[in-house]
Amino acid sequence: MDLPGGSAPSGVDTSVPTPRSADGMEAGARHMSADEFRHWGHLAVDWIAAYWEGLPDRPVTPPVTPGQIADRLPPQAPATGEEFESLLEDFDRLIVPGLAHWQHPGFLGFFPMTTSGPAVLAQMLTAGLNTQGMTWATSPAATELEQRVMDWLADLMGLPDRFGGGGVIQDTASSAMVVALAAALWRRAGDRWRDHGSGSRYTVYTSTEANCSALKAARLCGLGDLQLRHLDVDPHTRALRPDGLRRAIEADLSAGLVPVAVIATIGTTSTTAIDPLPAIGDICRDHDLWLHVDGAYAGVAAICREMRWINSGLEHADSYSVNTHKWLLTGFECSPMWFADPTVVTQALNTAPSYLRDVTDDARKAPDYRDWQVPLGHPFRALKLWFTLRWYGAEGLRAHLRQGIEHARLFAEMVRGDERFEVAAPHPFGLVCFRLRADDAANALLLRRLNATGDLFLSSTEVAGRFTLRLAAGGTATTEDHIRHAWDRIRTEATDLGQGG
Amino acid sequence: MDLPGGSAPSGVDTSVPTPRSADGMEAGARHMSADEFRHWGHLAVDWIAAYWEGLPDRPVTPPVTPGQIADRLPPQAPATGEEFESLLEDFDRLIVPGLAHWQHPGFLGFFPMTTSGPAVLAQMLTAGLNTQGMTWATSPAATELEQRVMDWLADLMGLPDRFGGGGVIQDTASSAMVVALAAALWRRAGDRWRDHGSGSRYTVYTSTEANCSALKAARLCGLGDLQLRHLDVDPHTRALRPDGLRRAIEADLSAGLVPVAVIATIGTTSTTAIDPLPAIGDICRDHDLWLHVDGAYAGVAAICREMRWINSGLEHADSYSVNTHKWLLTGFECSPMWFADPTVVTQALNTAPSYLRDVTDDARKAPDYRDWQVPLGHPFRALKLWFTLRWYGAEGLRAHLRQGIEHARLFAEMVRGDERFEVAAPHPFGLVCFRLRADDAANALLLRRLNATGDLFLSSTEVAGRFTLRLAAGGTATTEDHIRHAWDRIRTEATDLGQGG
Repeated sequence: MDLPGGSAPSGVDTSVPTPRSADGMEAGARHMSADEFRHWGHLAVDWIAAYWEGLPDRPVTPPVTPGQIADRLPPQAPATGEEFESLLEDFDRLIVPGLAHWQHPGFLGFFPMTTSGPAVLAQMLTAGLNTQGMTWATSPAATELEQRVMDWLADLMGLPDRFGGGGVIQDTASSAMVVALAAALWRRAGDRWRDHGSGSRYTVYTSTEANCSALKAARLCGLGDLQLRHLDVDPHTRALRPDGLRRAIEADLSAGLVPVAVIATIGTTSTTAIDPLPAIGDICRDHDLWLHVDGAYAGVAAICREMRWINSGLEHADSYSVNTHKWLLTGFECSPMWFADPTVVTQALNTAPSYLRDVTDDARKAPDYRDWQVPLGHPFRALKLWFTLRWYGAEGLRAHLRQGIEHARLFAEMVRGDERFEVAAPHPFGLVCFRLRADDAANALLLRRLNATGDLFLSSTEVAGRFTLRLAAGGTATTEDHIRHAWDRIRTEATDLGQGG
Repeated sequence: MDLPGGSAPSGVDTSVPTPRSADGMEAGARHMSADEFRHWGHLAVDWIAAYWEGLPDRPVTPPVTPGQIADRLPPQAPATGEEFESLLEDFDRLIVPGLAHWQHPGFLGFFPMTTSGPAVLAQMLTAGLNTQGMTWATSPAATELEQRVMDWLADLMGLPDRFGGGGVIQDTASSAMVVALAAALWRRAGDRWRDHGSGSRYTVYTSTEANCSALKAARLCGLGDLQLRHLDVDPHTRALRPDGLRRAIEADLSAGLVPVAVIATIGTTSTTAIDPLPAIGDICRDHDLWLHVDGAYAGVAAICREMRWINSGLEHADSYSVNTHKWLLTGFECSPMWFADPTVVTQALNTAPSYLRDVTDDARKAPDYRDWQVPLGHPFRALKLWFTLRWYGAEGLRAHLRQGIEHARLFAEMVRGDERFEVAAPHPFGLVCFRLRADDAANALLLRRLNATGDLFLSSTEVAGRFTLRLAAGGTATTEDHIRHAWDRIRTEATDLGQGG
């Protein structure tokens, strides 16, 4: 069967004006030569180094209004190629002043999203290689390095043995939740779920303090918001209450529903609360529920032996994920995730297309990571994790984590020393939730004024219904001086607001 | 309310041995200094340039067996930090020889996954900034550049006006399908879907030739495999047949089911078939179905005016996605996706957590991209798309795309000139499906022998039940010589296999 070369409708001109230069050689596009790349690459490296050095002189967040940046950009792409110099200039002049500088030492909002020299260098090399491991065969060393370095990290964190060999790097902890729920549904309902889908029979349990990704994951997985039970937390620790969990499961069973999974958290987004995994794990075992643990921000703290207690109960977990792009210096995105039994997720997500049959192998000996995640393509993120773990070593990582914890302790101590303020929740990690002993409006105004200074950036949350400020230590460049300076600004602004002083 | 500084169980030693050096300064971790970064960054840039220059001398795919790379890596992370020199050496010595070299000019399998100098430079800068736009406020310029550059690309591709302002960059086309299905379910079923989930009432339609991501997306969305109707294709064009689509929808309606969406393809993964969008769009309109179009590989060809016909019918699409990391030189991952009405997806996926309330704005004026995608965090991928579009300009991009199409035409011509071979499907883009006029075993053996040479890498698929080889042109470094050389190897191996000659 020989077929024509195209399938354009008849009457459509499909002649291709292949560009050829005068000497008969192919013209093609003007790609950047290796020498040009060396030249501009060195300048880009120097730009990054100077950017890092100059961060303290920039406002942490930009004083811009919506549309202001876009209005400075032309409405159309250029017809012909531009010199790289123009790109770099416009980047520096138009774009960078409109960014929030997450690497600024005064960026203390949300959670830190840290990177480091070795991580950035690894990202450069990864971009140059531009390879990917959707199956083992599509880039063997990428897959095998990922397996190995995930075992390294499990060992560093003192994770239960059951996670050995079960690691994969997801983009984010949110995607990890989607994958965990799919695996849980498959384990509970098998072909019935895979063939006929989710719906309102299956129920999942978490706390009111879980990351919003839990709700998005439940919704994306077709469970429906109402089937995700947001259970009350202890008003002081902000942690899930096992008695409430057990009651909710039993009530659902009585109603003929099918409990599937619990999403518990080590270090909630709002206040870094730690759900009581040992008791939750017992309940999951009793009812054969999948236990997914989200340690996005705080989980890596277990690399410090004195923080190892946060792992208590992880031996019950079926899946666990952390974001090394938060506190562990690998740059965004990098979310290590472990499965106790990865065959469950690969069975849940395998689709076996004919065009990949040739490059698909046995799942356990050589994993095909496409079946461990939402997308088909699997980026080579293991390199930056490998470089980061090796550059810092276990002791270097611990020193970084301990510094963040110590900064939070210091900040909380200063807050407690000022009777106008209160600390609003426990702070076992690098985050301190605090507020003025005043109404929500005063606290919201304080936050707005602080962030408008450009000196620092804090974020906010709601703790027990009250507006609360969040200061997150742990940034790569944040030192004790920055924490003390932040506190100075906070109490000065409070005084200016008329809050005593 | 003042609370204690930690929540460790009593009896656990939580004292933090904060490291301090002798002079009382904080020790913290040994971060890479800016000067060290300059030094190693220049070397990393030079490594990348030399890697690109040396690619022709490497085997395209590595001669390794599963476990071989992992066995060379230590079982544990180092206790103390290592010098960057060791990392770079081990990368070069242990990892790179075990990778598949997707940028090799002889990498002709799957689809090309192209990158370019400007894209890699942008990725370097992005890694250095390490910012992210989950909401507009978390990095305003990142969001606004993304909006603008997505409008640029829509304009370059000649997309319908309805997509203006509706662009977002996803990681991959697979994730785009998940998001499209969630939006479709929300539009069809509203609160009923959001509150109570998916399940076996809702049906989705695609062809047997759709990417495997369609099945994964349906399964992840809780629809169930059986609710994704894989409809037969035309045996010659491999395209979805509208009459079959209409019959399937009507049958499901008669059975009391709820048709929700059609996933159509411009350039299927197996053979680059193009589904007849005008007729499919009419059917979607008649039955109020969401039309998602997957143009992952081929969609960007519309940048060439003579290929603009592939857009025919896109005016019916509710969502459309392409992968610029395939043919358009931006590096992995970069999947532009457009919505005709983005408020549908933001309503479908919004979760509005309290800890982001302060930084959340009106969705249309300044999009919060967290509600347009699976994850919460949104990487700054717009920079590499911006750099790539500007470096090449519209004409440069066209020259690159035309070269890939021309190489495929040339290759198909050579295949047709050898009576031992046949072209197995139309090749409107850069992919040629071909095979020996022999049984599957002979074709599979030919492929294995070709790929074992290390000179080139082809992939395979099944066309109408028969094993078929795929040669994909369009790689950044692939020239006409490489295509001619590939053909020489193919016919020589065929002769060695005893296939005449």
